[in-house]
Amino acid sequence: MNGFPCKDATMVTADDFMLKGLDKAGNTYNKLGSNVTQANVMQIPGLNTLGISMVRIDYATPLGLNPPHTHPRATEILVVIEGTLSVGFITTDNKLFSKTLEKGDVFVFPKDLVHFQQNIGSVNAVAIAALSSQLPGTQQIAKSLFGASPPVDASVLAKAFQIDANLVHTLQYKFKSS
Amino acid sequence: MNGFPCKDATMVTADDFMLKGLDKAGNTYNKLGSNVTQANVMQIPGLNTLGISMVRIDYATPLGLNPPHTHPRATEILVVIEGTLSVGFITTDNKLFSKTLEKGDVFVFPKDLVHFQQNIGSVNAVAIAALSSQLPGTQQIAKSLFGASPPVDASVLAKAFQIDANLVHTLQYKFKSS
Amino acid sequence: MNGFPCKDATMVTADDFMLKGLDKAGNTYNKLGSNVTQANVMQIPGLNTLGISMVRIDYATPLGLNPPHTHPRATEILVVIEGTLSVGFITTDNKLFSKTLEKGDVFVFPKDLVHFQQNIGSVNAVAIAALSSQLPGTQQIAKSLFGASPPVDASVLAKAFQIDANLVHTLQYKFKSS
Amino acid sequence: MNGFPCKDATMVTADDFMLKGLDKAGNTYNKLGSNVTQANVMQIPGLNTLGISMVRIDYATPLGLNPPHTHPRATEILVVIEGTLSVGFITTDNKLFSKTLEKGDVFVFPKDLVHFQQNIGSVNAVAIAALSSQLPGTQQIAKSLFGASPPVDASVLAKAFQIDANLVHTLQYKFKSS
Amino acid sequence: MNGFPCKDATMVTADDFMLKGLDKAGNTYNKLGSNVTQANVMQIPGLNTLGISMVRIDYATPLGLNPPHTHPRATEILVVIEGTLSVGFITTDNKLFSKTLEKGDVFVFPKDLVHFQQNIGSVNAVAIAALSSQLPGTQQIAKSLFGASPPVDASVLAKAFQIDANLVHTLQYKFKSS
Amino acid sequence: MNGFPCKDATMVTADDFMLKGLDKAGNTYNKLGSNVTQANVMQIPGLNTLGISMVRIDYATPLGLNPPHTHPRATEILVVIEGTLSVGFITTDNKLFSKTLEKGDVFVFPKDLVHFQQNIGSVNAVAIAALSSQLPGTQQIAKSLFGASPPVDASVLAKAFQIDANLVHTLQYKFKSS
Repeated sequence: MNGFPCKDATMVTADDFMLKGLDKAGNTYNKLGSNVTQANVMQIPGLNTLGISMVRIDYATPLGLNPPHTHPRATEILVVIEGTLSVGFITTDNKLFSKTLEKGDVFVFPKDLVHFQQNIGSVNAVAIAALSSQLPGTQQIAKSLFGASPPVDASVLAKAFQIDANLVHTLQYKFKSS
Repeated sequence: MNGFPCKDATMVTADDFMLKGLDKAGNTYNKLGSNVTQANVMQIPGLNTLGISMVRIDYATPLGLNPPHTHPRATEILVVIEGTLSVGFITTDNKLFSKTLEKGDVFVFPKDLVHFQQNIGSVNAVAIAALSSQLPGTQQIAKSLFGASPPVDASVLAKAFQIDANLVHTLQYKFKSS
Repeated sequence: MNGFPCKDATMVTADDFMLKGLDKAGNTYNKLGSNVTQANVMQIPGLNTLGISMVRIDYATPLGLNPPHTHPRATEILVVIEGTLSVGFITTDNKLFSKTLEKGDVFVFPKDLVHFQQNIGSVNAVAIAALSSQLPGTQQIAKSLFGASPPVDASVLAKAFQIDANLVHTLQYKFKSS
Repeated sequence: MNGFPCKDATMVTADDFMLKGLDKAGNTYNKLGSNVTQANVMQIPGLNTLGISMVRIDYATPLGLNPPHTHPRATEILVVIEGTLSVGFITTDNKLFSKTLEKGDVFVFPKDLVHFQQNIGSVNAVAIAALSSQLPGTQQIAKSLFGASPPVDASVLAKAFQIDANLVHTLQYKFKSS
Repeated sequence: MNGFPCKDATMVTADDFMLKGLDKAGNTYNKLGSNVTQANVMQIPGLNTLGISMVRIDYATPLGLNPPHTHPRATEILVVIEGTLSVGFITTDNKLFSKTLEKGDVFVFPKDLVHFQQNIGSVNAVAIAALSSQLPGTQQIAKSLFGASPPVDASVLAKAFQIDANLVHTLQYKFKSS
Repeated sequence: MNGFPCKDATMVTADDFMLKGLDKAGNTYNKLGSNVTQANVMQIPGLNTLGISMVRIDYATPLGLNPPHTHPRATEILVVIEGTLSVGFITTDNKLFSKTLEKGDVFVFPKDLVHFQQNIGSVNAVAIAALSSQLPGTQQIAKSLFGASPPVDASVLAKAFQIDANLVHTLQYKFKSS
C-alpha cells in the first residue's frame, strides 16, 4: 500500500509536488465535531516513496474530538494554529502522556501508539500535523472494533471491554449506522 | 526501546541464544482466560538487533480470549498447536478479516493492525506465534483506553465510544482494579 | 548524529514530547531576511528515533530568502501560513521545479535536493514545514562553499563556478565575516 | 525476489492470510532424513512486504539432519515441538555456538550465518521456526558448492577444502545425481 | 528512481552482473578537465536493489576538477589508482575536511555532503570509487544553481551568493551554453 | 557489530576518513595464495554508520584463490586492476553464475550468496572491491565448517557432504592446524 508505480520522469511536473487549500476549514458537522484534511500521496503524487505527509485538523467547539486512533505506519508531530487542545497518547505500559496545548505549541505522538486530541477551548481549533509516511493510514479504535464489517463477535468485545453482550449490540448498532 | 548495548563479543555464549520452557502451559486463571509467554530480547539477549521473536499463547476453555490489541512494531504469524481458535484483524477501512483455525493452521496479523484470538473449542488451545521485532510491544486496546494511568478524560471516551460518562466511569473503575 | 541514548523509560514525561512557541515570529533582521525556528530532537527529546521534525520559517518583506540548501537526511513538506512564496527545487538533471504558493498551499521538496523559498509578496510570510528526520541537518550551499573553515581552495571554486580567483576571494571574505 | 505486486485491496480476503496443514509431518525419506514445510509468501500471499514467515521442520530418527545452510535474508528463531535436537551456528570468527534442545526449547540462528539441526533423540523430531523475511531463501552449503549447475571448477573446490581433484569429482557426481 | 522491475529469474545470466572497460581512461577534454565513467544499475542490471555501485574518475593535468557536488542517495569511498588528488567535503557546520591523496590512499565522503576532488599532481590522475546506492545520482552544485532549466530567479542567486544580478546573469549565460 | 559509539563531533578530523596503503600488495604466501587488505570501519573510523567499505585483494600465480565465502551483511562489486580472474557466485537455486574477468572488468556478487575468485592468468592479479556495509564480515565456508572451534560434530559433516567420518576427521585436522 506504500508503493505506487513511479511516473515517467519526463512527465513529472511541479504540480505533482503541490496541493492547494490547507487554509480552508474542514466540515466538523458530525458526531465527533472534528475533520481531517489530508495532504498525502493520494493528493500529492510526488510524495511517492518520500516518507512524509501532512494533515490539517479542525475541531469544533465545544469539545470537538479527534478520537483515539493509531497510525500503523507513522509518528505524528502536531502544531496548534488556533485554539486550545487537550492531547494525549497511551504507552504500551498503559501510561497516559497528556498536555494542554495553546497556539504555537508542538506535540509528538510516537509511532503507532493510541492517541487523541480534543478542543477544550471556547473557539474552533485548528492544527497542522505531519506524519512520517506518505500514506500513514488511520485506525480509529472505537469505529474499528464496534463498527467493523462484518461485525466482530459480541463475545470478543464483551469480554475485552468487560461489558454485557446487549451493550455490545447497542454499540455495534450505533457505529454501523454512523 | 529496540536497541540494547551489545555484549562484548568474547563474552557471548550459546546460552545467550537459548530459552527453555515454551512447552509449559501459561496460567490462564484470569478474567480473559488467556496467557502469553514471551521469548523476546528480554529473555534471549542474543536476539538484540535481529528483528524477530516468539511467543506461546494459551487459551482456556470456554472462550479464553487474547483481546483486541496492536503490536506497534511487528507483524505476527501464528500456528495453532492444539485446539480451535476464532481469529481476526481489522483493517484501516474497518473490514474484519477473520477465520476459524484448527490445529496446524497458520494465520498472519499484518503490522500494527488491531487483532484478537478466541478459543471457540471445547479444550484448552495453544498457539505458537512469531513477531517481526525482537521486542514487539503490545497495546491492549480496552485496557489502554479505560485503564490508563492517569485516566483518559471521560469526555474523550464518552464521545469516542458513544456512551455516557457514567458508563465510562464504571469501566474505568473495572479496569483500574483489574 | 541521529542516535541519542534513550532516556530511562521511567523518567520520561509528557514534557519530553512538547515544545512551546512556534507561534512566535523569528528574527529576520539579517542579510537573507529569513529565519528558521527548529522543533527537532534537540528541542524535543521524545523525537529520538522517530524520524520526523518540524520548523517554522519566517520571511521578511521584500524578498526574504531561505537560500538554496539541502537536508542530507530528509524530505520536506511545507505549508504556507501567511503570505506569498516563490519556491523551487532542482533535480539531478538540473531541472527547476518551482511554484508560487499562497496561504494554505502545500509543497514538497524531495530528499536531499537543492531547494529554496523566497517571499515575493508585500507582507511578511510564514510557513510551517515538516522533515522526515528527527535531526535533518542543513547544508546551505553558498555558505558551505564560500564560507567553509578552513576555506576551500580558490582554484576549486574558480573552476567550478567559472569565475576568477579574485572574485572567489571577495566572496570568501564576505561569507567569512557574515 | 522480495517484492510481489500488491493485489487490488478490494480483492483481498482472509484466505490470503491463511495456510492449512502445518500439523502434517513432512516426508523425511531422503538422504538427509529431514523435510522443511514452507509457510512463506509463496503459500500465503498476504505476507507480501510483511517481513516474516514460518516453517515446520521434520527430522527422522536416527540422526535426521537439516544440513549446514544460510538464509541470505533472515534470522531464524526455532522452537522444538517434539524430540531432541543438536543445533548450532558458526560465527564469522569460526566459533561454533551449539546446544542440545528438548521439547519447548527455543534457539536463535542469527541472520545469514551457517547453521544446522540434527535429531539426536530416539524418536522423530519436529520444530516450528520463524524467519525474519516473507521469502527467506535458503543456500544449502554442500549442495550449492558440489552440486552447482554448471559445476564449480574442481580446482576451486580442491584448494578450498584441501582435498584432491578426484574426490571433488566424486562428490560432484554424488550431488548431481541426488 | 531506485526500483526497476526485476527480470524474470529464469532469464538472468552472468552478463547481467558484469561490465567491461573500467580500465579505459574517460575523455577529460572539457572545461573541468575530468570525467566520470559509471558502473551502476543502468550499465549492470544485476545491481538492482543491491545498494552499491562503482565509478572510475579521470582527472587531467593540471588541476582537473570533479567539482563540488552531492550524491542525494549515497556515501562514497574512493581509492587513488594513479596521481595526486586534493579532496574534501564540507559538513553541515561548514567545516572543510580535506586531504592530499597519493596512489593507494582511500578517502570517504559521507552521505549527501558537498564534496570535490582536484588533480594537484603533474600527471593525469585516476580514482576508483564506490557508492552506497545502485543509482546514486549526482547534483553538481554550480551547474544546478546557475544552469537550471528554467533558470532560477536572479534575485534568489544574487541574495544567496551576495553578488549582483548582472553577475548572476553572466554566470547563467556561461552555464547554459556549457 | 555494525554500530560503534560516535566520536564527539568536535574531535573528528579528516584523518578519521582516510587510510593509506591500498597500493601495497598483500602477502599471498599461504595455502590459498590470496590476501585481502581491509579498508572498513576498523581502519577508517569515519565509516561508522555509512554503509560502505573497500578491500584490495591479491591473488598469486598460479591459481591463487579467494575461496568460497559469504558476507552476511553485504553485496560486493569488484573491479580487476591487474591480471585475469575466474569469478562466480551460486544462487539459492544452486545455479553457478561465473565469468572470466580481465583488467578493467567489473563483477557483482549479490548480498550473502556464496562466491569466489581465482587467478587463472600467468601473473599476479589484483582487484579492488567495495562492499555495502562498513563492517561486512566474512564467513569462509570450508574453514567455518571444518575448522570451527569447538568442532562441528562429524556426523553432521559426514551426512551433509556425503563423505565418511574418517575423511571428516582428516579435514578437521587439516583446517585446525592451518
